[in-house]
Amino acid sequence: MKTPNDILERSQGLVKTIVIAAADDSQVLEAAKAAVARRIALPVLVGNVAAIKRLAWAIRFDLEGVELHHAASAAESVLVGADLVRAGRAEILMKGHVNSSVFLSAVLNSRHGLRKSPLLSHVALFFPAFYPKPVLVTDAGLNTHPSFDDKLLILRQGVEVLRKLGVAEPKVAILAHNEVPSRKVPVSEEAIRLVEAVAAGAVSDCIVEGPLALDLALDDEACRSKRFQTRVGGRADLLLCPDILSGNILYKAMTVIGKAQGAALIVGAQVPIVLTSRGDSMETKLLSIALAAATA
Amino acid sequence: MKTPNDILERSQGLVKTIVIAAADDSQVLEAAKAAVARRIALPVLVGNVAAIKRLAWAIRFDLEGVELHHAASAAESVLVGADLVRAGRAEILMKGHVNSSVFLSAVLNSRHGLRKSPLLSHVALFFPAFYPKPVLVTDAGLNTHPSFDDKLLILRQGVEVLRKLGVAEPKVAILAHNEVPSRKVPVSEEAIRLVEAVAAGAVSDCIVEGPLALDLALDDEACRSKRFQTRVGGRADLLLCPDILSGNILYKAMTVIGKAQGAALIVGAQVPIVLTSRGDSMETKLLSIALAAATA
Repeated sequence: MKTPNDILERSQGLVKTIVIAAADDSQVLEAAKAAVARRIALPVLVGNVAAIKRLAWAIRFDLEGVELHHAASAAESVLVGADLVRAGRAEILMKGHVNSSVFLSAVLNSRHGLRKSPLLSHVALFFPAFYPKPVLVTDAGLNTHPSFDDKLLILRQGVEVLRKLGVAEPKVAILAHNEVPSRKVPVSEEAIRLVEAVAAGAVSDCIVEGPLALDLALDDEACRSKRFQTRVGGRADLLLCPDILSGNILYKAMTVIGKAQGAALIVGAQVPIVLTSRGDSMETKLLSIALAAATA
Repeated sequence: MKTPNDILERSQGLVKTIVIAAADDSQVLEAAKAAVARRIALPVLVGNVAAIKRLAWAIRFDLEGVELHHAASAAESVLVGADLVRAGRAEILMKGHVNSSVFLSAVLNSRHGLRKSPLLSHVALFFPAFYPKPVLVTDAGLNTHPSFDDKLLILRQGVEVLRKLGVAEPKVAILAHNEVPSRKVPVSEEAIRLVEAVAAGAVSDCIVEGPLALDLALDDEACRSKRFQTRVGGRADLLLCPDILSGNILYKAMTVIGKAQGAALIVGAQVPIVLTSRGDSMETKLLSIALAAATA
């Protein structure tokens, strides 16, 4: 798996059922149409049926054979979508034209919600041009200041995604500002404890090192010039971020500075959740559906 | 000023006196030699004179006319270097073959030290390929968790560097994970207060906005697609980082992901301080000397 195309090929023909809540969103419908064309997914559309049909017609998305469920509001669409997932009628949930916080509060709701793990987390898979393989960044979008235990769950969920993509023993870098832990930066000392917890069995099937600065995690040359002995450095598959501030900056650096193609998911729920934003490209939306299908 | 070469040209012929503490470092001597060749700086070398002469000879660096000061240890070299600066004998200080913490504690020392501002800060100027101008990242290297007041000083010192480089009214983005402040992420609310403090006159000669996510700060297209009204977004000259974790990740992203050429300085002392690390390229070391000369 080296290019975004490999994700598309991996998910081609899987025809996973994807329920789209508040599907009256032409960009999301475009991505769904492309996913149908590649037989990655079969959509179930929830929302204002008239609006959905009108938008689908405008982009020549043939809804023949596509299940439609009417909902009176965006919020109701999410509840109907979650119900379909809980009833086992869908393998992926995708957010359409509805505010993220409305969508997430429904997903996290204790009665109607879709929780499976004690924690949902955000994973983003990037294919940076300079790197010989994809790299998973987590958590850049959901958990603001994850605790030690949260980080173990985030790490485990990230490792599971990579294993489903065929990376047998993901190499994990626990990011900080330096490879030398410092009392002034608690996250860098926490990294040591995370490595110890993983070694003690908290997360299996991965090789973890930390703290690591980003250059040591991704750049072989930086490891050599620092004479840094490592099994993860220069070849990390997963970057565990200290918090949402650094995670989001890394995520945006991948797209804005690195022009890397990427796909993002929320994991830890009963099914993978695709939650792309208006600013994401059509490629990112399709890739995210493909990543969901490949890991569902 | 658009390329690294513009910094070199700007500093060419300035012949600023640069004192190098613990100059027995062949990479640092290489950079000094290149700075001499371009008449950017005139070095004063402090350290083990025999070792310095041997290393200089090996790289064909002609020490004719170069002032040499013997010091018995690396730590003593830093003290001698700081003395030379305080005596007005040097306009730039550079770290050679000495541990950064030894170097910095001498610089920050209340008796022998070189403090001018209540706070020293780290600035890094990058020339990313995708961006039409350089961008200054601060603080990615010195202050771990700067307070509100620290951030105002960091911001002011960054603005001063850019103004010395000819940017009359730098556009400053106060980075966070999102343009919408959130109670869950105190830094994003702090950004609002920083903008208010600048508007009230705490820092002059700049245009400040925040909180901004990195994509909005650097990518015009992201601002358009979010219909984000802004004077800074997509064209920021200065990125104020939330803390050292996010700052260091951004710094490393610029070099590792963006392959951007860069230069780094410590500012706020009596003279600009060049503190490059072993992993930095020769170009980065020379550019950092040039940046120091241009802003000294």
